[in-house]
Amino acid sequence: MIRNINDVPMNAIEMEGVKDTSMAVMVGRSDGAPNFALRSITVKPGGHTPKHSHDFEHEVYVVEGHGTVLLGDQMHLIRAGDVIYVKADLEHQFKSQGESLRFLCMVPAMRDCGEPTPGSD
Amino acid sequence: MIRNINDVPMNAIEMEGVKDTSMAVMVGRSDGAPNFALRSITVKPGGHTPKHSHDFEHEVYVVEGHGTVLLGDQMHLIRAGDVIYVKADLEHQFKSQGESLRFLCMVPAMRDCGEPTPGSD
Repeated sequence: MIRNINDVPMNAIEMEGVKDTSMAVMVGRSDGAPNFALRSITVKPGGHTPKHSHDFEHEVYVVEGHGTVLLGDQMHLIRAGDVIYVKADLEHQFKSQGESLRFLCMVPAMRDCGEPTPGSD
Repeated sequence: MIRNINDVPMNAIEMEGVKDTSMAVMVGRSDGAPNFALRSITVKPGGHTPKHSHDFEHEVYVVEGHGTVLLGDQMHLIRAGDVIYVKADLEHQFKSQGESLRFLCMVPAMRDCGEPTPGSD
């Protein structure tokens, strides 16, 4: 299964605290992936993901653009080529800066308690 | 933890069937990642990964360059932006074409039997 991130429709993320952000699940549980899901996320200029935390980790790769990520109480600049590890239960938020920020966000397919992770389908 | 893929030393992969290929584990078990590991892999011009299969899956993102991937008995062209899902036990091989091929390769941290996955540290 091969798909290019430029050819896949993005769906707006409708969630409290999200602005101008869309997502496509590139590989997930519905593709048969048993352990983790790979999502493509675009944050338009001025947009941001929710400032939140949850009981599963993220592994992130910045594909293009500039922005910031809040990790706990620390704000960091991020740019294309950056890999970011957001451990479980750490508060985090991604924001674009100037242009769109595009990144891959990987999540485990299952939470520790054995329930599907949101957005891993 | 934030690291750019251009700032991380790459280590040559010394394995039978590999040519001119290097790897850096960007996020792995030694970083505390419990479920999956994110590795950066570069295949120099003329190089290739081994033609093999194993009991765990890959999720791959092509960062730059062109190349081919063998999936079972089918050869596919790949290019920047492509996401490739290589399911467990499927024979596969990545080759560069003309220029270096750089991709991210994610693997689960543990095999089904509970042993660490090679290259996930």
